Amino acid sequence: MSRKIATCLSPALVPHYDLDNTIVVVIDIFRATSAICYGIGNGASAFIPVKTVEECLSYSNNNYLLAAERNGSIIEGFELGNSPLSYTKDKVYNKTIVITTTNGTQAIHAAHNASKIVIGSFLNLGILSQWLKKQPENVLLLCSGWKNQFNLEDTLFAGAVIEQIASSCTHICDASIAARILYLHAQENLIEFAKKTSHNTRLQELNLEQDIQLCLQKDLINCIPILVEDKIIKMAQ
Amino acid sequence: MSRKIATCLSPALVPHYDLDNTIVVVIDIFRATSAICYGIGNGASAFIPVKTVEECLSYSNNNYLLAAERNGSIIEGFELGNSPLSYTKDKVYNKTIVITTTNGTQAIHAAHNASKIVIGSFLNLGILSQWLKKQPENVLLLCSGWKNQFNLEDTLFAGAVIEQIASSCTHICDASIAARILYLHAQENLIEFAKKTSHNTRLQELNLEQDIQLCLQKDLINCIPILVEDKIIKMAQ
Repeated sequence: MSRKIATCLSPALVPHYDLDNTIVVVIDIFRATSAICYGIGNGASAFIPVKTVEECLSYSNNNYLLAAERNGSIIEGFELGNSPLSYTKDKVYNKTIVITTTNGTQAIHAAHNASKIVIGSFLNLGILSQWLKKQPENVLLLCSGWKNQFNLEDTLFAGAVIEQIASSCTHICDASIAARILYLHAQENLIEFAKKTSHNTRLQELNLEQDIQLCLQKDLINCIPILVEDKIIKMAQ
Repeated sequence: MSRKIATCLSPALVPHYDLDNTIVVVIDIFRATSAICYGIGNGASAFIPVKTVEECLSYSNNNYLLAAERNGSIIEGFELGNSPLSYTKDKVYNKTIVITTTNGTQAIHAAHNASKIVIGSFLNLGILSQWLKKQPENVLLLCSGWKNQFNLEDTLFAGAVIEQIASSCTHICDASIAARILYLHAQENLIEFAKKTSHNTRLQELNLEQDIQLCLQKDLINCIPILVEDKIIKMAQ
């Protein structure tokens, strides 16, 4: 049986990929998908990803927590941004969070035609890869990048998934081969390697070292967030 | 002085890059830019890159050689495709070639707002890199890819250029860091590595092994093709 893995290096390239019969894994390591994984892992009921700050504000009532980030910073007046560390159990347990971010939530919307959309980060690398291996559909690893440009950390994560699931696939695209080589090059010391990335430089300027360390930890949570209608919830397993 | 190198991994991403004060190097290793370099190296007066087969046909008269390729094959009725081996001195000396290809000529058009557009391939890696090092402008390495998706061979060449010119630049984007790592990983045996690429598989099916070997030879020619108005000519040096 033929089964493909592809890696799409920017949300702007999604229209050039076939999403039929395809599971899309949305990746925004620094920091939206890490934050969503951490939040769902800490018992949040759901995340509602929205494109704009205005759309996020339209949910203002006691039923929701509102999260908005642009250019790495929390938008003034919002309770949350995209820092995973702020999605603690105390804060998010049993809550629904409406979230808009510079890159990650835009990528989720770009993938809307996929068969399934799941959320990936180093925090759930193991359980996600194990699940992907068992599915019959093709897999597209969608890197959110930075304002539609390539970024290293999302590509490294794509490479980490490919390293685990390649044996279950018959076709691997060039971008996936490249991502896997990059991951194998960097895996011994992801944190050191991440210091080379342009995004890390931006985050260091914002004094977010602890966030970076959290985002690069493997297998801290044991669940897979999945988009069901307009909500990201914990996949039943 | 600040000087940037960036690598754009698909023509579809060009709108997300700033082309002001920027030299764009168009890269389509298998095979359009290799063919253009080889042809100019063999004394062709000029290449006129056009987007469509119809536009190419509009030049039908004795003053031009017409070249058209789609999906790896020469289009029926045309004298040339994009096989570098066919651009021999006998064939192209003092001739102007009108060319349209699946990826490479499309990338040239995508870059039309750049300060300068030059043509890169392994065949002119050395002279091109030496020249780029001395220029004050930013550099954008534009990989033609395959139908707007990433490909390995163009990225490897971008990495080879970056390896040579990085010391002359102050800012290197994530895609450039990735391309350089991939090149350093593959450089010992480019031909073996190229066998992993999806494009190579397509070309092998078309029985083009000799073309592949030619496209991966370094420094076979000693000139830089540059776009001046609508024509690619040999840069005066």
